[in-house]
Amino acid sequence: MRIALAQLNFHIGNFHSNREKIIAHIERAKQEGAQLIVFPELSVCGYHPCDLLEREEFIEWTYESIEIIEKACKGIAAIVGTPTINESQKGKKLHNSALFINNGKVQHLVHKTLLPTYDIFDEYRHFEPNTDFNIVEFMGRKLAITICEDLWDNQPTNNSFGRNKLYGKSPLKELSKLNPDLVINIAASPFSSDQEKKRKDVLTMKATEYKIPLLYVNQVGAQTELIFDGGSMFINSKGEVVQELACFEEDFRIIDLDAPREKCIQPAVSRIEKIHHALILGIRDYFTKSGFSKATLGLSGGIDSAVVAALAARALGPENVRVLLMPSKYSSGHSIADAEKLAVNLGIQYELIEIQPMVDAFEKGLEKSFSGLEPNVTEENIQARTRGILVMAISNKFGNILLNTSNKSECAVGYGTLYGDMNGGLSVLGDVYKTDVYQLARFINSEQEIIPENTIVKPPSAELKPGQKDTDSLPDYETLDQILFRYIELNQSPNEIIAQGFDKEVVKRTARMVNNNEYKRYQAPPILRVSPKAFGFGRRMPLVARYEG
Amino acid sequence: MRIALAQLNFHIGNFHSNREKIIAHIERAKQEGAQLIVFPELSVCGYHPCDLLEREEFIEWTYESIEIIEKACKGIAAIVGTPTINESQKGKKLHNSALFINNGKVQHLVHKTLLPTYDIFDEYRHFEPNTDFNIVEFMGRKLAITICEDLWDNQPTNNSFGRNKLYGKSPLKELSKLNPDLVINIAASPFSSDQEKKRKDVLTMKATEYKIPLLYVNQVGAQTELIFDGGSMFINSKGEVVQELACFEEDFRIIDLDAPREKCIQPAVSRIEKIHHALILGIRDYFTKSGFSKATLGLSGGIDSAVVAALAARALGPENVRVLLMPSKYSSGHSIADAEKLAVNLGIQYELIEIQPMVDAFEKGLEKSFSGLEPNVTEENIQARTRGILVMAISNKFGNILLNTSNKSECAVGYGTLYGDMNGGLSVLGDVYKTDVYQLARFINSEQEIIPENTIVKPPSAELKPGQKDTDSLPDYETLDQILFRYIELNQSPNEIIAQGFDKEVVKRTARMVNNNEYKRYQAPPILRVSPKAFGFGRRMPLVARYEG
Repeated sequence: MRIALAQLNFHIGNFHSNREKIIAHIERAKQEGAQLIVFPELSVCGYHPCDLLEREEFIEWTYESIEIIEKACKGIAAIVGTPTINESQKGKKLHNSALFINNGKVQHLVHKTLLPTYDIFDEYRHFEPNTDFNIVEFMGRKLAITICEDLWDNQPTNNSFGRNKLYGKSPLKELSKLNPDLVINIAASPFSSDQEKKRKDVLTMKATEYKIPLLYVNQVGAQTELIFDGGSMFINSKGEVVQELACFEEDFRIIDLDAPREKCIQPAVSRIEKIHHALILGIRDYFTKSGFSKATLGLSGGIDSAVVAALAARALGPENVRVLLMPSKYSSGHSIADAEKLAVNLGIQYELIEIQPMVDAFEKGLEKSFSGLEPNVTEENIQARTRGILVMAISNKFGNILLNTSNKSECAVGYGTLYGDMNGGLSVLGDVYKTDVYQLARFINSEQEIIPENTIVKPPSAELKPGQKDTDSLPDYETLDQILFRYIELNQSPNEIIAQGFDKEVVKRTARMVNNNEYKRYQAPPILRVSPKAFGFGRRMPLVARYEG
Repeated sequence: MRIALAQLNFHIGNFHSNREKIIAHIERAKQEGAQLIVFPELSVCGYHPCDLLEREEFIEWTYESIEIIEKACKGIAAIVGTPTINESQKGKKLHNSALFINNGKVQHLVHKTLLPTYDIFDEYRHFEPNTDFNIVEFMGRKLAITICEDLWDNQPTNNSFGRNKLYGKSPLKELSKLNPDLVINIAASPFSSDQEKKRKDVLTMKATEYKIPLLYVNQVGAQTELIFDGGSMFINSKGEVVQELACFEEDFRIIDLDAPREKCIQPAVSRIEKIHHALILGIRDYFTKSGFSKATLGLSGGIDSAVVAALAARALGPENVRVLLMPSKYSSGHSIADAEKLAVNLGIQYELIEIQPMVDAFEKGLEKSFSGLEPNVTEENIQARTRGILVMAISNKFGNILLNTSNKSECAVGYGTLYGDMNGGLSVLGDVYKTDVYQLARFINSEQEIIPENTIVKPPSAELKPGQKDTDSLPDYETLDQILFRYIELNQSPNEIIAQGFDKEVVKRTARMVNNNEYKRYQAPPILRVSPKAFGFGRRMPLVARYEG
């Protein structure tokens, strides 16, 4: 039996384009002699439509799409992910389903059993879990069809304490009682820098444990914050990955179960390279799927904006990136020179606008109100916000989406100005710690110097007052990032972190800064997620809480 | 048996103040001769701590608080809401529990069975549901202890289509098999303008159906967006509300089951009056719980900022409200006069800063970049953003939290400037449609003219270009609000709305505006929730979706 794996990039709610893509690949699979084609989870509508699932017309459109796709399934069978209506009188109105379509008709419905409801996942908000396990027979083979999380029954709860299993049920254990010949898993499993390894471990362990070959088809493409990396694969019954599709791009491959081809897997890629590719896909899809092509941002001469500009130029083409250099009286000479050099290296359009006249106008306007008071962070924020207005003016006038350049370390401790440098339609680096931003810069420069060396080696500074350095207000980034990683990704308590040898006062101050800045992050742009715990939808903290014993 | 109802306002994560409050009320109840005191859901930590529940130290602090509270429970029993650790090896790590404490020890644990996971609720994210039903015997009476949603088993799913029941299980049906004498429900049930009636219907129906008296203790106080309105009550076995506690404030009452007092219920209050009280509580608690006392905002002379200023003055005291009047060359004379008159009526501090010099500085700075292009919405946004910088400067310099003044109609259609008039720490009217803002103004003026009549009767305008009126870009608010209500609150499709007689083009354009502005709302401040479907956490829409068939 020849099975086609269709690793595709879908657009949420764009039923027309999604089904055209599905049908085109059904045709291609037929031409290439496949008997079955497998599409990812929720292909018909894109993953994840969130509360659009609560709208009746949205669900009607999914059914209309399925009717059209059914007609294309003649001479070939297809497994397609879509929401379906829960026909029982109790529970959530929908299932997250895989349809087995053959001879122009849906012949089997399989519903997802394990509904991830943690971190970025909210599936129990909309879906009723499956409780009933069946095998699909096709061409003399018994197929165990599962959906994404269904194979992740062994994972622990996501609390920092205790280690009990999150789920009390194993779909594959149930299905294995029916002696399947092949496990199929359709997925929409988002990228994070450690996810590829985790995913392979889970899938190969399942194949090994049950001694059954396993075919995995993942979605690819970014949906705002979430970046789906693809990496679909075929694992043999010994638990070896023998076929692996591309990461971060659409791919298509036919697996012949009866005549296995040579092993064909993807080359190993470093963590930073993966993050680099993920961010480029994230930027590109955000623009494409929202109907925009051009970006803008402010280039400060610092490393964050340099890395964002380089990534944007790669994602959108240099001709689609237009930047502003906005020096103030506190900007050092090298800042402008470094920013200009970068713009020239990238071949992007740049303009220079001095902010001092606007800053002066604000300070004059506020003179009476502020009389007798010393300048403080207020005046620093006015500079950052003046720049925020200027880049938004470029955005509004020319239709360029503003890219935000804040990194994860800054977002964590609130080192940024709301309505100033925190502006933007999309945060590119909001899930990348400062120390990783440096590594990204080195990776971008690996073939030739694109980001000026001076931008990489000079001490980071917001340049909002004379001689200012980030280390005036923050611990050095090497230390800060290690503390933040333990506090945010690992959910360790300040005391646990201190016990590992970090300075007590620095740890307590860092935790306090993280907690006191929830209100700023609440209004931050969506952040491209590349870590297992990004700020945004997957980390939900109360805003007015007091965090203390 | 005398039972005390302790309807209290808790602070999320402030274990010290929460348990001091709990213990003080245990003492009071003892003094007043009660044998049992009942506190709301998750009293120990406040509802809802969100992902703080994933931190080990946070859970340790809840256990520490319980140990201290246990010691106070001598000579009196208490029912206290708190998270507890799921001791089984499977499922979510926590339960949402009610502890029955007597003789200085926790004697019974009751876990919540129905975990709301829709709209603003995410309880299945953290809690494992109960599956085991038991009665607590105390002083010869059998108590059926339930937690909030446990009595809401009859509700439909929240989809706009189909009408199946959300839950397949009825905790009270299970408990009724054990012949309880009294149902106790501890709750954290947030306000919306129709919630009080819904809640009474649900609770009185349960008492009637099972012919058992029912005692309901709800949390009061605001937790950022969510406003808990209290309204705790005692319902007799005929299903009559015989005792009802205050709404929107802490309250305490003792019910004698053996010697029922005269009926004592709250006076009926209009929908607008409830919203008014809710917003005041929402503002006050946001400030108190985040450690701030002073507010700022821009007064335009229009109705939205007038209503917000009046509410803020009532919530925080006029001495704590400091406003800016920021006219431009497009401001009409009456705008300044109306704003000044309001400030004087309220007795709040006001300053006037002309924005033209800053706007001119921006336009000059952008002259080269914009050369040859006509002014458009870009220049309007520059005005709004200049005002946004000025009020934020007051906020930063004096520690006054900026109150946002956008109403729900504007938020819905994106009629507002991101980083301009959409700025603020808290959105006061983001869940109040424009037509209701007028009603709020009339209510505020019901005893004397506080908001100048001219502010209420003049046609609404953003005053960002000569002679501009809201109706240049939007349908009239009477029509717009009716369409928005059907689209957002009722989840009706454009076609269903058109079928009710609304103009086809207007409906389609409105739906398009709502969908195209998700990206703006993503960065909006938290919105005080007063309707059953507010923008924010309870309405989760993809940002880059295409919404079409």
